[in-house]
Amino acid sequence: MKELIERIRLHGKILRNGILKVDSFINHQVDPVLMDACGREFARRFAHVGATKVLTAEISGIAPAVTAALHLGIPVVYARKTKPVTMPDTVLLTLAPSHTKGVMTELIVSPEYLADGERVLIIDDFLASGATILGLVRLAQAAGATIVGIGTLIEKSFENGRAALSSLGVPLESLAVIVSMENGRIVFEGE
Amino acid sequence: MKELIERIRLHGKILRNGILKVDSFINHQVDPVLMDACGREFARRFAHVGATKVLTAEISGIAPAVTAALHLGIPVVYARKTKPVTMPDTVLLTLAPSHTKGVMTELIVSPEYLADGERVLIIDDFLASGATILGLVRLAQAAGATIVGIGTLIEKSFENGRAALSSLGVPLESLAVIVSMENGRIVFEGE
Repeated sequence: MKELIERIRLHGKILRNGILKVDSFINHQVDPVLMDACGREFARRFAHVGATKVLTAEISGIAPAVTAALHLGIPVVYARKTKPVTMPDTVLLTLAPSHTKGVMTELIVSPEYLADGERVLIIDDFLASGATILGLVRLAQAAGATIVGIGTLIEKSFENGRAALSSLGVPLESLAVIVSMENGRIVFEGE
Repeated sequence: MKELIERIRLHGKILRNGILKVDSFINHQVDPVLMDACGREFARRFAHVGATKVLTAEISGIAPAVTAALHLGIPVVYARKTKPVTMPDTVLLTLAPSHTKGVMTELIVSPEYLADGERVLIIDDFLASGATILGLVRLAQAAGATIVGIGTLIEKSFENGRAALSSLGVPLESLAVIVSMENGRIVFEGE
């Protein structure tokens, strides 16, 4: 998606640890107009999959997941990383390694809002190794739901998340695909 | 705002600890159509204040803050509760008591995205004691920004947050004002 790629080109920063910093428009400050455009694009690409719910992980997935869900006209559930007091005693919980923090984090969903028979579209900000998304997949499957698609804003294809998710056999769409960040230069697919 | 009040009446649940559970449309599962309507209403009520940025706190503030910012056409910054590796070494940090967790939590903003001269509209999901919002106020003031308004989805007026914020002298708008939750019954302002 051209607008997102242009924004990454202009304002994305490669940090020393190989992390792509997009804090000025996705991860800390959010450009809501860009997120709305991304949500509309996700809705267009996944219009055919018959999703009944969007699933994401707090925190950075919330903005694109909410706008995608808005344009699809379906609810969104965000997996929590700590169990709030408002959740029932028995929840769905899985562990996933955090890409940017180097530790395991919990992903928790209340069975109240993820039910048997639901058709789940997973939306997240990044696809790197695919570990967080695989955690969301496990939660949805534990609830008896079916994954019908996966959409991410930014895919770092050299971290092989696409291969890790391929056995699911569902459409995987990334709005910007980065094939290399070597020597301080961001190279997008097709360049 | 009628739609929000109706939804709380239908789907809000009072838990034993006096907490209002709205996890089915705001705090875990999100109704994006309702959040978009709330964002539009915030934008209408704060159209005159000349805000240049929306400020909220992760996690539950993000959805209404993003939609408000979308309809105002300005960026949104969400204060983080843990400092991610993408933030610079020196940040703005304040402590605020968490209403639902009973502990102090950190609110952290990067000075990259909250600058001197900025006109800040604070948006959050709940106004109870006002402690979280006062934390956001301190962060904005530490950055040299001016608070121009405060908007919340749900105000529990019996927890006196409005009084705690009154010395700021800025417009404070809540889309649903609850005056009592005694005896398991939610009573809205004007009822």
